[in-house]
Amino acid sequence: MAIQKLSEEHVKKEVGKLKGWSLQNGKLHREYKFRDFIEAFGFMSRVALTAQSLDHHPEWSNVWNRVTVDLSTHSIGGISQLDFELATKIQELAGERD
Amino acid sequence: MAIQKLSEEHVKKEVGKLKGWSLQNGKLHREYKFRDFIEAFGFMSRVALTAQSLDHHPEWSNVWNRVTVDLSTHSIGGISQLDFELATKIQELAGERD
Amino acid sequence: MAIQKLSEEHVKKEVGKLKGWSLQNGKLHREYKFRDFIEAFGFMSRVALTAQSLDHHPEWSNVWNRVTVDLSTHSIGGISQLDFELATKIQELAGERD
Amino acid sequence: MAIQKLSEEHVKKEVGKLKGWSLQNGKLHREYKFRDFIEAFGFMSRVALTAQSLDHHPEWSNVWNRVTVDLSTHSIGGISQLDFELATKIQELAGERD
Repeated sequence: MAIQKLSEEHVKKEVGKLKGWSLQNGKLHREYKFRDFIEAFGFMSRVALTAQSLDHHPEWSNVWNRVTVDLSTHSIGGISQLDFELATKIQELAGERD
Repeated sequence: MAIQKLSEEHVKKEVGKLKGWSLQNGKLHREYKFRDFIEAFGFMSRVALTAQSLDHHPEWSNVWNRVTVDLSTHSIGGISQLDFELATKIQELAGERD
Repeated sequence: MAIQKLSEEHVKKEVGKLKGWSLQNGKLHREYKFRDFIEAFGFMSRVALTAQSLDHHPEWSNVWNRVTVDLSTHSIGGISQLDFELATKIQELAGERD
Repeated sequence: MAIQKLSEEHVKKEVGKLKGWSLQNGKLHREYKFRDFIEAFGFMSRVALTAQSLDHHPEWSNVWNRVTVDLSTHSIGGISQLDFELATKIQELAGERD
């Protein structure tokens, strides 16, 4: 099944259901703050493995205990169901379930 | 300060205070079980960073969701305070505090 | 396609083609030695991501700069093509191509 | 010994010696490109362990096979010898020695 770009309306509705996430610059955006670098990078290791499983990877940055995640699907120039799937798994890895 | 080998008596007393740890083959021993490989390797990443901070590293093995840890201080051929320090930090990383 | 157990004859022939690997206790076995813990754990991170992609994970252990890898397919109680696939990718990650 | 802010003149001279690095927004800046996500994140794992050893961490971001690194010393609001030490170690980890 080809990956499809979701409508802006659909994205806005769905992002509202993901605690702490927002739509920024056309991407699903979330900032996480951890106790220290070790917890932050441990989280990144878990997200990296999850992303590899999905074959769908985040844009992300880290400064010590903070990790910023931006999700979009480059091949379609927008947000697809894969981004919501990865966002949902990241929430679980961060210990947040909605 | 030089690293000193702790007496067997001292080790036995201290290991009894660490929940889930035992003395096996002259090493501090613990087995952890996680939900899946992702959680297991995320834990290993946090332990690796902690070990690097202490410049004291575990002997450990992993099979999918299980991680087995053995701690001793090679340079002194026994167990030192460093091993208890690392074991205590590993307990914290695993979300277990005594 | 179901994962199939390879014949002992087949396994012996194929393992001979993988530089540095042997058959031990019914598993594909290899020991790697790196410069230090950082290089060893960096290698383990790459292998972990590769294993997650294949959904096929190693039994492995680490002591400072050494990493020991044992591959088999638990679900079939033997060695399958998946083990050779993972071994080949591990060789590439270690910078060894045959 | 207290961490000291290096003079702009000193920084400019030293950054010129680090292949591929430049001074951007008052930080030591470098972009790395790898074969794929696995190689990129393996590199990040090695850098994370090195940063933990130095107790000095990067600002960095990753998009699939690319890793962007920015180094500065927050506590002094500038660039210190620690940043050059980390940059030099990162070069080694990336397999580039000047």
